[in-house]
Amino acid sequence: MSKNAVGRADQAGMDVKNKILETASDLFYNMGVRAVGVDLVVEKAGVAKTSLYRHFGTKDDLVAAFLEREDRAFWETWDRVAQRYADDPKGQLSGQLKWIGERAGQASYRGCPQLNVAAEFPEIDHPARKVATSHKRELRRRLKVIAEQLNVVTPDMLAGQLAVLINGAFVSSQIFERGEAVQLLQRATDALIAANIAVHQDPHTQA
Amino acid sequence: MSKNAVGRADQAGMDVKNKILETASDLFYNMGVRAVGVDLVVEKAGVAKTSLYRHFGTKDDLVAAFLEREDRAFWETWDRVAQRYADDPKGQLSGQLKWIGERAGQASYRGCPQLNVAAEFPEIDHPARKVATSHKRELRRRLKVIAEQLNVVTPDMLAGQLAVLINGAFVSSQIFERGEAVQLLQRATDALIAANIAVHQDPHTQA
Repeated sequence: MSKNAVGRADQAGMDVKNKILETASDLFYNMGVRAVGVDLVVEKAGVAKTSLYRHFGTKDDLVAAFLEREDRAFWETWDRVAQRYADDPKGQLSGQLKWIGERAGQASYRGCPQLNVAAEFPEIDHPARKVATSHKRELRRRLKVIAEQLNVVTPDMLAGQLAVLINGAFVSSQIFERGEAVQLLQRATDALIAANIAVHQDPHTQA
Repeated sequence: MSKNAVGRADQAGMDVKNKILETASDLFYNMGVRAVGVDLVVEKAGVAKTSLYRHFGTKDDLVAAFLEREDRAFWETWDRVAQRYADDPKGQLSGQLKWIGERAGQASYRGCPQLNVAAEFPEIDHPARKVATSHKRELRRRLKVIAEQLNVVTPDMLAGQLAVLINGAFVSSQIFERGEAVQLLQRATDALIAANIAVHQDPHTQA
């Protein structure tokens, strides 16, 4: 093949790979991973089953690639908000909780894909579980950076509390009243920040 | 059959039913619901498949019965703690967060069965999803009763925040550091209570 022909073949291969991943991601997210067989992915993507296995090896690898894709999309949204509040950590947190609350507050919200996959797969060493765990640790790490910018006494504790709150929002669509999620989360965040600044007043820290 | 023989047959039927439910509950919780077929339940319980269908109708009904059983067990633990703090709503909350945090803080914790099933089944009208939704609404309702006893300005808001925090704890085992979960949750609870008492100082309520 000429150099151009090789380039075109590479591009066609990437197109097929992207098509498979996009189709699988939609199906996995909306129906649950175990409910979706590779046959359905292949059929909906309109590709050959050999293409799926050439690009992804196993279904488990495809599930891991789905979570990696979700991970990238999540941090892209996060980074866009972070850029708007470059020197305003409190404003940034409020901004992050706004889109997270809007997403989680929808009655039909299907939850965080990382948490859903963790619920479906008990095996802690499943390749997709490893992506989910690393995504959640990254969430706490980023929250700790913000907490440090806020000059709280206990940034790691605050980061942990905020991560629990955010994880909780992702699985609470069934208890939110319509339209309350954003304000509920933002007020909770303010309360947690205030308490971690004034941590000496906390009875649990006294002997 | 004599009256005694009927009684014995009823009892034997209940024993089989309980055995099936107990076996199914262990398998569903530890492996995930979709990963467990009725054949495995029948084999592990040592009963005939016809017995399973006579007592539970369909697998979906069995999944709903599993969540109803988990729901009863959860509130039994909750009520035992509540009884210890009859006139001490703050102590009660701290006590509830203690066992919830201990459970959720284990690295190998498999999460809340109600949330896991909700993650596995997108269909909002699935019989098991209905149990899960009603369980979570009951959580918020009970938290609101406690919030009212605490005389906070916004008991419904506080109940919602605490429900999100508790749901968050159930799905956060992968981000908790060893041994931190209980204190992290209890301090968060104190912060949320304090903020809902002093809600007039909250910037989000000001015009």
